[in-house]
Amino acid sequence: MAKKKQEPFEDDGDRQQDIADFIRPFVVAPAKKKVKLSDYDPGYKGSFIKKKEARKMLKDGISLLFEYQERLYAENTDALLIILQARDAAGKDSAIKHVMRGLNPQGTQVYSFKAPSPEELDHDYLWRTHKAMPERGRIGIFNRSYYEEVLVVKVHPAILDGQHLPPELKDEDVWTRRYAEINNHEKYLTNQGIHIVKIFLNVSRDEQKERFLERIDRPEKNWKFSEADARERAYWDDYTRAYEEMLARTSTRSAPWYVVPADHKWFTRLAVAAIVADKLMEINPHYPEVNDEHLAELTKAREMLLGEE
Amino acid sequence: MAKKKQEPFEDDGDRQQDIADFIRPFVVAPAKKKVKLSDYDPGYKGSFIKKKEARKMLKDGISLLFEYQERLYAENTDALLIILQARDAAGKDSAIKHVMRGLNPQGTQVYSFKAPSPEELDHDYLWRTHKAMPERGRIGIFNRSYYEEVLVVKVHPAILDGQHLPPELKDEDVWTRRYAEINNHEKYLTNQGIHIVKIFLNVSRDEQKERFLERIDRPEKNWKFSEADARERAYWDDYTRAYEEMLARTSTRSAPWYVVPADHKWFTRLAVAAIVADKLMEINPHYPEVNDEHLAELTKAREMLLGEE
Repeated sequence: MAKKKQEPFEDDGDRQQDIADFIRPFVVAPAKKKVKLSDYDPGYKGSFIKKKEARKMLKDGISLLFEYQERLYAENTDALLIILQARDAAGKDSAIKHVMRGLNPQGTQVYSFKAPSPEELDHDYLWRTHKAMPERGRIGIFNRSYYEEVLVVKVHPAILDGQHLPPELKDEDVWTRRYAEINNHEKYLTNQGIHIVKIFLNVSRDEQKERFLERIDRPEKNWKFSEADARERAYWDDYTRAYEEMLARTSTRSAPWYVVPADHKWFTRLAVAAIVADKLMEINPHYPEVNDEHLAELTKAREMLLGEE
Repeated sequence: MAKKKQEPFEDDGDRQQDIADFIRPFVVAPAKKKVKLSDYDPGYKGSFIKKKEARKMLKDGISLLFEYQERLYAENTDALLIILQARDAAGKDSAIKHVMRGLNPQGTQVYSFKAPSPEELDHDYLWRTHKAMPERGRIGIFNRSYYEEVLVVKVHPAILDGQHLPPELKDEDVWTRRYAEINNHEKYLTNQGIHIVKIFLNVSRDEQKERFLERIDRPEKNWKFSEADARERAYWDDYTRAYEEMLARTSTRSAPWYVVPADHKWFTRLAVAAIVADKLMEINPHYPEVNDEHLAELTKAREMLLGEE
């Protein structure tokens, strides 16, 4: 009978501390006035982790995510939104595939945001992502997001010109307003129980070139590449400035940014898994407690079932 | 350079034949005038498969699904819709968790359909599921679907009374019309490249009772159970008739129904994986071929990258 209290989630505390220590170098402190990407090494892979060891750790980490996800789903009050932003070929798709593949797809929703459609452009810029927010109990993953509005749109002002905004709202303060709007939006979501972690996969210029060349040289990867991707490298420094500004302005206590080293895919996956695990541990979901009414219902149902012919 | 032709998908043909043979007993032949659920044994587990062996087979099967999914996603022309219907506790959630967990969540979309909301009831009954159709390149899973409209709604006519249909459309022909409408809808979807497989998880009355009792006795499963679930067992035979009618009327060559034995969860998972693998093999997606224009673009991009400072 449903009388015994459920056990608290089995965790030795050490693990939680280990995970927190592991991801600490990647978090962008909320109070930071200025962020320099050059302070973050894209090739970083920890001082002690070997690739083989990492594979085992990733497997354990994914099992941990899965266990927490079960409780998140059952509890059905909180949701987790993971936002991934990065330059091309930094490994967003790969992180989703290799980290999130271990989750239950019934509780996982991935949305990839491309250039907005005409219908989407007829709305405010948070409209299309808001529709795609994870429901309570779910884990939502945004492969790109509304942050493109202060990234690609900022780097290519012609895109803003093409948006149907009233002309007086296309002034020089538009970016400052957007950072504030995004912070307020995320604050609101957090107040609604939608927890947010934001991950910037930090790939180096050299490694991106290698990966582009691989996409050109390997026929089964050709579909992932267009010449425009290579041309966009001309704007590398503009993007760097846009990322730095975004990180400094929108990393908040409740919705922090993590700058994850992305030159070694195996390390990236481990870091992403750890960041998600850390947040789930903070949410700490539990299977719903049975109240007296539900308990009485269960008892009655039990009698009904056992009393059948 | 992207010149060499991509290899055809590595499959020895034997495997495809094995899978087809394995699932053949479960398919409902399209020409069938009458279906008797009593012809399908919920406890069936094959003549040769042991539970341990099945675990290994499932693991291999899931890897196969994943490989095909990669190609489906890259090709971006076809989609696969998997419809799951069943009585409570037959194992829909469990099949999704254990079979679909191996897929890439970026290419997988699960929708669970509950009782329709007021907004949904203000629309035709295919509206809410149509919105949730998988995009090209994706695998969509419907945990329940528009088939509830000829199942729970048929078993409990009061639900139909509560729907905002014009009264003259609530006549006795409503079910016959719905079967035809659904067949036409699925025919249309198939003509659009959205392939459909439909799976009925066939659990026995005794096994359902055992699983309900488990949900009552294990606190962490309480949230999955309400007294109403037990009361619904009074309609067991009505549901049997509704399922039989649905299977006979809506199993078509292009969108067949499978009646999968559901008393042994490990066997259910294997059968579901096999049915999905069979359909993916039939679709047989390929990485997109590179046309001359794209090839020229790749060559140019390669030069651009190698010529950088």
